[in-house]
Amino acid sequence: MKINEFCNLSELTSTIKNWSALTGLKVDVKNSDGEIIASTVSAEDNPDNPVGSDDGEAASDDSFARTINIDIKLNDEVIGTTVVTESGGNAANMNAAMPLLDELVNNFVLSQYFKYANEKVLSHLSDGIAQTIDLVKEVTSSTNNLKEIQKRQKIVAINASIEAARAGQAGRSFTVVAEEVKKLSDASSEANGKIERVVNQIRNIVSTLSLDSSENV
Amino acid sequence: MKINEFCNLSELTSTIKNWSALTGLKVDVKNSDGEIIASTVSAEDNPDNPVGSDDGEAASDDSFARTINIDIKLNDEVIGTTVVTESGGNAANMNAAMPLLDELVNNFVLSQYFKYANEKVLSHLSDGIAQTIDLVKEVTSSTNNLKEIQKRQKIVAINASIEAARAGQAGRSFTVVAEEVKKLSDASSEANGKIERVVNQIRNIVSTLSLDSSENV
Repeated sequence: MKINEFCNLSELTSTIKNWSALTGLKVDVKNSDGEIIASTVSAEDNPDNPVGSDDGEAASDDSFARTINIDIKLNDEVIGTTVVTESGGNAANMNAAMPLLDELVNNFVLSQYFKYANEKVLSHLSDGIAQTIDLVKEVTSSTNNLKEIQKRQKIVAINASIEAARAGQAGRSFTVVAEEVKKLSDASSEANGKIERVVNQIRNIVSTLSLDSSENV
Repeated sequence: MKINEFCNLSELTSTIKNWSALTGLKVDVKNSDGEIIASTVSAEDNPDNPVGSDDGEAASDDSFARTINIDIKLNDEVIGTTVVTESGGNAANMNAAMPLLDELVNNFVLSQYFKYANEKVLSHLSDGIAQTIDLVKEVTSSTNNLKEIQKRQKIVAINASIEAARAGQAGRSFTVVAEEVKKLSDASSEANGKIERVVNQIRNIVSTLSLDSSENV
């Protein structure tokens, strides 16, 4: 995960500039490739660490000023570094201000990440919910279809028993057939009714997911 | 939404103490009821603003020290206040350090909130997914049931056509019934097959929701 992908870099820059205003120290934030993605110094005034440079870390080692690196972590993975450079006689200040900068940058990155992750989950979720609701409609169309078929099966069963009665003795075995057709169409209606009820429950649950998610965030 | 509900207060305390170490200013964080929920000063040393006091704001007005209040906001709603109290001759420092404290507390609260909201959404989501997968199993049990019924309907159709043939001239109308039974059982199988396929799609989509969500956060 690259910081650039989810972090508002101008807000990050404003955050480190506020810290810098208080401490007088220069801050660069680098991503995991060592590129500077935010700095308290504008790109043209920052020749040692040009924005977008891949050899930022080597450049820091070359300079004479003392630097301190703070890891930027996300779920225990280091995804960047906050580099503080001493400028003038403020070395004493540096150590006292370091925990604050650590929290400042890490909390900012974390809040941006969680915001991004939330949006991604919710957008994926709402896609999935929309698809599921469409599919539930398809199931409902099939269960309605089955209901029509079952109605006709019942009519066929009635017709069969009428024909059986008309045939008299010759229709005796056909009465059994007619009863069986009726019995099976009843069983079929019962199974179909259960599918309808359960699919309605699915639709309700999935709709609730969507509502609750947007309320929560 | 109360800060106490989602914020780790000992981490919040540590955050404001880091800022306080740098600026020498006292900081209290109050929730929307005016209760102090985090302070750079321990409760026993903080007589003006005892932790848990409901009249925190009145106490601030009574004291002679200059205070500055910064809103803590969540989705444009004020959910608390960061109160900074001047202590000694550091008034000049105070204004310069204020934007930093604002960002520090607001970003911390925001990152805690998004983390909390994520966990809540994901837990609700995984409950909903588990329920949906159980319901899909119920539908599958009903469609299997329907398949058995449709097999028997086909056998009944065959029996009916055998009986119709045996009845000779008297069985002519039975042949029509037998054909109708066969036709309806085929149509029923088709509808049922469609339900099976669509419900499988629902299961796949819902399972993917669960996987993707846990990967994203």
